[in-house]
Amino acid sequence: MTVKAYGTYAADKPLEPLAITRRAPGPRDVQIEIAYCGICHSDLHQARAEWAGTQWPCVPGHEIVGRVSAVGGSVSGFREGDLVGIGCIVDSCRSCFECDDGLENYCDHMIGTYNFPTPDAPGHTLGGYSQRIVVHERYVLRIAHPEEQLASVAPLLCAGITTYSPLRHWRAGPGKKVGIVGIGGLGHMGIKLAHAMGAHVVAFTTSESKREDARTLGADEVAVSRNEEEMAAHTQSFDLIVNTVAAPHDLDAFTALLKRDGTMTLVGAPASPHPSPNVMNLITKRRSIAGSMIGGIPETQEMLDFCAKHGIVADIEMIKADGINEAYERMLKGDVKYRFVIDNASLAAG
Amino acid sequence: MTVKAYGTYAADKPLEPLAITRRAPGPRDVQIEIAYCGICHSDLHQARAEWAGTQWPCVPGHEIVGRVSAVGGSVSGFREGDLVGIGCIVDSCRSCFECDDGLENYCDHMIGTYNFPTPDAPGHTLGGYSQRIVVHERYVLRIAHPEEQLASVAPLLCAGITTYSPLRHWRAGPGKKVGIVGIGGLGHMGIKLAHAMGAHVVAFTTSESKREDARTLGADEVAVSRNEEEMAAHTQSFDLIVNTVAAPHDLDAFTALLKRDGTMTLVGAPASPHPSPNVMNLITKRRSIAGSMIGGIPETQEMLDFCAKHGIVADIEMIKADGINEAYERMLKGDVKYRFVIDNASLAAG
Ligand SMILES: [Zn+2]
Ligand SMILES: [Zn+2]
Ligand SMILES: [Zn+2]
Ligand SMILES: [Zn+2]
Repeated sequence: MTVKAYGTYAADKPLEPLAITRRAPGPRDVQIEIAYCGICHSDLHQARAEWAGTQWPCVPGHEIVGRVSAVGGSVSGFREGDLVGIGCIVDSCRSCFECDDGLENYCDHMIGTYNFPTPDAPGHTLGGYSQRIVVHERYVLRIAHPEEQLASVAPLLCAGITTYSPLRHWRAGPGKKVGIVGIGGLGHMGIKLAHAMGAHVVAFTTSESKREDARTLGADEVAVSRNEEEMAAHTQSFDLIVNTVAAPHDLDAFTALLKRDGTMTLVGAPASPHPSPNVMNLITKRRSIAGSMIGGIPETQEMLDFCAKHGIVADIEMIKADGINEAYERMLKGDVKYRFVIDNASLAAG
Repeated sequence: MTVKAYGTYAADKPLEPLAITRRAPGPRDVQIEIAYCGICHSDLHQARAEWAGTQWPCVPGHEIVGRVSAVGGSVSGFREGDLVGIGCIVDSCRSCFECDDGLENYCDHMIGTYNFPTPDAPGHTLGGYSQRIVVHERYVLRIAHPEEQLASVAPLLCAGITTYSPLRHWRAGPGKKVGIVGIGGLGHMGIKLAHAMGAHVVAFTTSESKREDARTLGADEVAVSRNEEEMAAHTQSFDLIVNTVAAPHDLDAFTALLKRDGTMTLVGAPASPHPSPNVMNLITKRRSIAGSMIGGIPETQEMLDFCAKHGIVADIEMIKADGINEAYERMLKGDVKYRFVIDNASLAAG
């Protein structure tokens, strides 16, 4: 099946309308009519080949929501018309320890939603900037939110799970003090989620102008990280800090704020290294610097259900497909509160 | 009371005989006739003022064993003649969360065995390169080893607990694969301890010549870290790596060997930073880089009892006090298997 999409054939070209093909649904496949797709920073990095290995054409998008439009003969969990989502993972080996544990995100053979090898044409996966997608039912998520919130649910599939997973793994909840560094696509979800889990939430931002926004999102306190006094007030007080900032920065300013046995989890990888972290900050209080990458399929479902129950969605700005290139420019400047979401119906015009 | 000691009045002078004073035992103090004192790398760093804040005179030594020679009137746990040890800690606030948890090593007001403030003359603590020491009973450890092993027990008080604590905290034991990086004073204890805990132990060394030694110490496998093939064979297989190497080195070579959710714990702080660790190594498998510093008093007692039960002591080379300066030079070259221990009886000649 040929469907309309938005993508690019070269790193230095803007994204433009393309036609791509999707496989016919196999016995356990779910075909999805995509309603909305969030725009993640990763999309831009991949489309502009800022990461190694971009395959052309590149059709990004891994914050996908829509309705089931067809199912394979052996699919029992979904039927036509269901509201569903696809996140960053469309396949994995299904037989390793990680897959057995529902941690497909850590499977060595995880297949990402775009730019990963596939037997389908053109040989690599093509993402959610497209009208339809076909995915094995194991990787399809159920959405319990009301349909009118559907566009705002899309960013949960990457930004949501990427912050939810470390918050859960390192036990954010009542009685815990949790920091969220950076108030962007990921960080704004981290604040909402940590707050809903019952933690005492402190948001860290470099910009004075985001102070009120952070409170509105659910932060109990806000610290402007350039303000040494505000930072010092939090010395040795955090159980967990989820650091969403991918730009190279001074990690020591945050590890110093962790309690004994506290952890700072990095969810973004910088293009050039952070300044080397001070080992004494770790040794003197048995602190950890960890990393975390998206989340597994069962945990993504748990996150979606948690968000539906607590009325949590992303704050979004909706755009049409022909606004993607402009959205990329604005995203680079941090000029979005807090996630662009494509109205995929607009692809029909392409 | 005046006692003989070995120390220095300046960073660029060798250690030499000194006379120092020890307080009369207070109600809860234990006075110890020091039999042996191990030589730790920290001793050298402090005596040569390679770390900030060395106070003069500097009398190092925090791997102290001996016999109780007097006790204060309110001491109930010790009596004259008991075999005891003093490690890196001689006081703390005794009222914070850390102290309440028996983690005096993480107390913000921990008083180290040398070079920390004290009301006693000369205003800073003086360590175990001396005939006697007087310490509050809370910080005195019981030694259950046979007396003839006493000299070899001394290094357990720093090198032993520094590796024991992270091995216990991160649950080394049967079914776990544990790496020990560096086969020196700390590393040789780490191998013995992890082996006795029942873990599968892999020793990492830069020197081919230590391969057999590591096996003798209890390593199940040895990898020479310059050998890429040997390193690659251990990719993604470790639950825990305890890294004892303080010299700046490539941490990524080791984080890549951790399983999903594995931890590398650093127990040595480099004088200049390690190359900045690759964040992707952490993110892609939810790995951690942590730090750990010595251990609390209850855990140090547990470690000593564990070692007595399993017949574990350090491998040592005994020296007289007038051999300390030469021992420092040899220690710098790694020319010791694996710890120098001073026979403190030799101080009488000073
Ligand atoms: Zn993403
Ligand atoms: Zn797998
Ligand atoms: Zn030491
Ligand atoms: Zn304390």
